[in-house]
Amino acid sequence: VLELTRRILDGEVRATARVCRMVDDRVEGHREILKELYPGTGSAWVLGITGNPGAGKSTLTDRLIQRFRLGGTRVGVVAVDPTSPFTGGAILGDRIRMQQHFEDPEVFIRSVATRGALGGLSRSAADIARVLDAWGAGVVIVETVGVGQDELEVTRAAHTTLVVMAPGMGDDVQAIKAGILECADVFAVNKADREGVQATVRDLELMIALGSNLLGGASTAGKRGHSAAAVRVPKPTGAQGEPVEGPWTPPIVECIATRDHGTGELRERLEAHRAWLGGTDAGRARRIERQKEQMVASLRDTLVQEAAAELGQAIDEAARRVEAREIDPYSAADELIAQFRAR
Amino acid sequence: VLELTRRILDGEVRATARVCRMVDDRVEGHREILKELYPGTGSAWVLGITGNPGAGKSTLTDRLIQRFRLGGTRVGVVAVDPTSPFTGGAILGDRIRMQQHFEDPEVFIRSVATRGALGGLSRSAADIARVLDAWGAGVVIVETVGVGQDELEVTRAAHTTLVVMAPGMGDDVQAIKAGILECADVFAVNKADREGVQATVRDLELMIALGSNLLGGASTAGKRGHSAAAVRVPKPTGAQGEPVEGPWTPPIVECIATRDHGTGELRERLEAHRAWLGGTDAGRARRIERQKEQMVASLRDTLVQEAAAELGQAIDEAARRVEAREIDPYSAADELIAQFRAR
Repeated sequence: VLELTRRILDGEVRATARVCRMVDDRVEGHREILKELYPGTGSAWVLGITGNPGAGKSTLTDRLIQRFRLGGTRVGVVAVDPTSPFTGGAILGDRIRMQQHFEDPEVFIRSVATRGALGGLSRSAADIARVLDAWGAGVVIVETVGVGQDELEVTRAAHTTLVVMAPGMGDDVQAIKAGILECADVFAVNKADREGVQATVRDLELMIALGSNLLGGASTAGKRGHSAAAVRVPKPTGAQGEPVEGPWTPPIVECIATRDHGTGELRERLEAHRAWLGGTDAGRARRIERQKEQMVASLRDTLVQEAAAELGQAIDEAARRVEAREIDPYSAADELIAQFRAR
Repeated sequence: VLELTRRILDGEVRATARVCRMVDDRVEGHREILKELYPGTGSAWVLGITGNPGAGKSTLTDRLIQRFRLGGTRVGVVAVDPTSPFTGGAILGDRIRMQQHFEDPEVFIRSVATRGALGGLSRSAADIARVLDAWGAGVVIVETVGVGQDELEVTRAAHTTLVVMAPGMGDDVQAIKAGILECADVFAVNKADREGVQATVRDLELMIALGSNLLGGASTAGKRGHSAAAVRVPKPTGAQGEPVEGPWTPPIVECIATRDHGTGELRERLEAHRAWLGGTDAGRARRIERQKEQMVASLRDTLVQEAAAELGQAIDEAARRVEAREIDPYSAADELIAQFRAR
């Protein structure tokens, strides 16, 4: 373990790949390695990228990697595929757009597949991001395939989350997906040369203004008027200068990833969020909040794992009794919990 | 509690609505009501309907409700919206297509919103389905908005799950979403008058054939040849007659919900799955398996709830220490777990 840890901290790719695999497979002893590595982590900026399939996430991720690499930053990529074994290969095909970086020794790309357990995906992604942090990545990009609840949870492990949208992706009502606002730090409206880009931006602005009010955020725009057209989001601040105190309002950046338009500004907005997170009280409060969420998620996963391992047969028996209607499922669960806690 | 229970079992709508609300809000005492109601449940067939936004789920659900109502069956609908508070209203707009049934006293429609906790959504949906079962519904339809992991989990509470797809919904690779095969009992390819319907059906057939092999299912089609064109799914059996022993192969039904085409056949396929579930050994094994999954999910939720309630401040403190890098998150979680189990 110490040998592997040392080699990762020395920036060795093979040891890093091996430990990533161990973490993803959750093999015996992987937690000890993570504990050993932990003191060597903390310098990477973890950037989550999420959005609907087809919004152009992979191309945009590719452009951002390029920009980070131009600045000499070592980049880790955690590509999250919440897939069944038999779709894993197919979705990897989509990742081929990132292939130009596969030859760059300063870019480490690792796919994570869910191992079935709810929440296991985000735990693996967060752990692998830490391994890449220890390896010496200055930026770790965690890219998800879609915007389901599990993927939103993945982005909670990120310092900064970019949500990528594109005009004309289905019903507007449904494109503005559940839970996105709570996780989005920056919005990119990609494919900005397409029809409907202004409508998408407007919908986002409205949502941000409404959300800021509901979530107790800073935007006062929504209070000024009731019509959608009257609601405007304040221009984002501090891209280059000092971070500004107060809640963060997600900026919206229009871009065309295929032509590398707008990606420079996008990167600046992302960096501004990073500066806010590290340099303001509100940002620090946000980091502690995220840390707490991760702690609860970690507790949940560990408890479930321990309960499943220790109760194994008792769970089978309880399921059989419920199916035979010998007991109701609520009392059966109560019994199992009592049994688990008494051990 | 006994009074509420009695009124629900008598088929009273107001009491049913009240208890559904209590269950969704997880108010004190709702579990006691669920336990009381349990002996009065078990007669409803729980039908999960899922699929990407835009596939026409609501219209198809509407058609199926119509057919069940024509047969005199009382119908419960649990509409699952994994939404933030501020999108709830918007997504309800989509449900207006079901509004013709709002006036029918034999149709009870109830929306469920997630209460933040991962897994909470599926627990609420399953519990509300049980309340509607007790109220006297012959069929309870659980309809989800999308196909994320949380929504797939919702469908695990269903006896029979219908996955609705439509031609031309984004990349084919990505349309065949993660985890769908494990949960799908019947596929509907809706909007079958659109271009690309044959490609969608073919992709599904291929996926089913591959999946049956990987999952140890019955289909031998995939073993005959390697080319996609050679793989065919066996025709589904037993729609009208006796259920046939052996694993279930999901049939694919083409339909056009807006014109009510194919929905009669769709209903027959769904009923065939119901018959398989109740009348074969493989079906019974499947039911016990599902029961077990629900038991584990219920354990997980209860454990997390108890841990969060009992450890509250300790979690905050641990999060602060991790953020200050005084302890690594793995050791912090270990400490919290030990503390929880020792109480």
